Amino acid sequence: MTDTPREIEALIDLMARLPGLGPRSARRAVLMLLKKRAQVMAPLAQAMAEVALHARDCQVCGNIGTADICPVCADDRRATDQICVVADVSDLWAMERGGAFKGRYHVLGGTLSALDGMGPDELRIPRLLRRVKDEGVSEVILALNATVDGQTTAHYIAEALAGSGATVTSLAQGVPIGGELDYLDDGTIGAALRARRKF
Amino acid sequence: MTDTPREIEALIDLMARLPGLGPRSARRAVLMLLKKRAQVMAPLAQAMAEVALHARDCQVCGNIGTADICPVCADDRRATDQICVVADVSDLWAMERGGAFKGRYHVLGGTLSALDGMGPDELRIPRLLRRVKDEGVSEVILALNATVDGQTTAHYIAEALAGSGATVTSLAQGVPIGGELDYLDDGTIGAALRARRKF
Repeated sequence: MTDTPREIEALIDLMARLPGLGPRSARRAVLMLLKKRAQVMAPLAQAMAEVALHARDCQVCGNIGTADICPVCADDRRATDQICVVADVSDLWAMERGGAFKGRYHVLGGTLSALDGMGPDELRIPRLLRRVKDEGVSEVILALNATVDGQTTAHYIAEALAGSGATVTSLAQGVPIGGELDYLDDGTIGAALRARRKF
Repeated sequence: MTDTPREIEALIDLMARLPGLGPRSARRAVLMLLKKRAQVMAPLAQAMAEVALHARDCQVCGNIGTADICPVCADDRRATDQICVVADVSDLWAMERGGAFKGRYHVLGGTLSALDGMGPDELRIPRLLRRVKDEGVSEVILALNATVDGQTTAHYIAEALAGSGATVTSLAQGVPIGGELDYLDDGTIGAALRARRKF
């Protein structure tokens, strides 16, 4: 379109790169922002600039925060002898929403993947091994996706930690709360059956 | 979540107010932005701040641009004797994407709606009547939605313009290009039949 001002077109192009928004919905979002310039657009631009300026990776665990040490690592009330290993910051956030884990995290930054050229050194695996040694960690909980890449990564880490003195565990597999058997895949049902417990 | 920094939570809340994004997808979008701080987040914040600062309603037609007079109204090559009346800026953009109209626009800013308390003075209807008189307009094309509110607004404007000397027309109704009869509603088929043309 020739008659949309250049700045607005540039904004639409950038918005369209967000996950969940395509060119059409980015245009609709920008129109909504244009109508609510003072109430939404200006505060959003401000909030985004602030986060872009201050956000950084935690130097200990790889979580994203606004300080060199993230709030989880800085929280003295959390156990230091348990480390939960996750692939991504989104997984850490999901674990925190559950609120069941009271230890520390380690964010790998992805999973091992020969196809994508992700080896142990592209992830934060060497740093994990160092933490386990230096911080007196007694348990490493692998909370990785139940995918091929996730499980390959889990096996690699478990092997690398053999002899470190730390117990390596992983999240239980089974029927999700509220899940209906009829809709579950066979692999999950099989895993849940193998891990059955006394009722 | 207690452990996400306050600034990031604030950003997620603001993003969740965009159309097409809910709380979950806003969180995912912010995570993507956090991972691409330099490449996407900073430029997006910058583009948004710039547009928020410079965007304004065209003083003639109500289109949104970055100057007091929008690019359409400022374009000397466009006919001044035809005004296309649309409800919203998004409709103007849709018309411009088509590229078939070479006159000027008038953006009402909504449609008449008793329920929402939108009367003629809440819309830019008085200004439209003044433009038709002052600018020597010969044709007013009503490009309003084929909804009850849209058609109520169209009838109101047509009546208000009676005796102004300008011809009032509206977009044709019929089968959309590429449309399949089987999937069309009865109202559209009826309208297309009544407006049938010699083949």
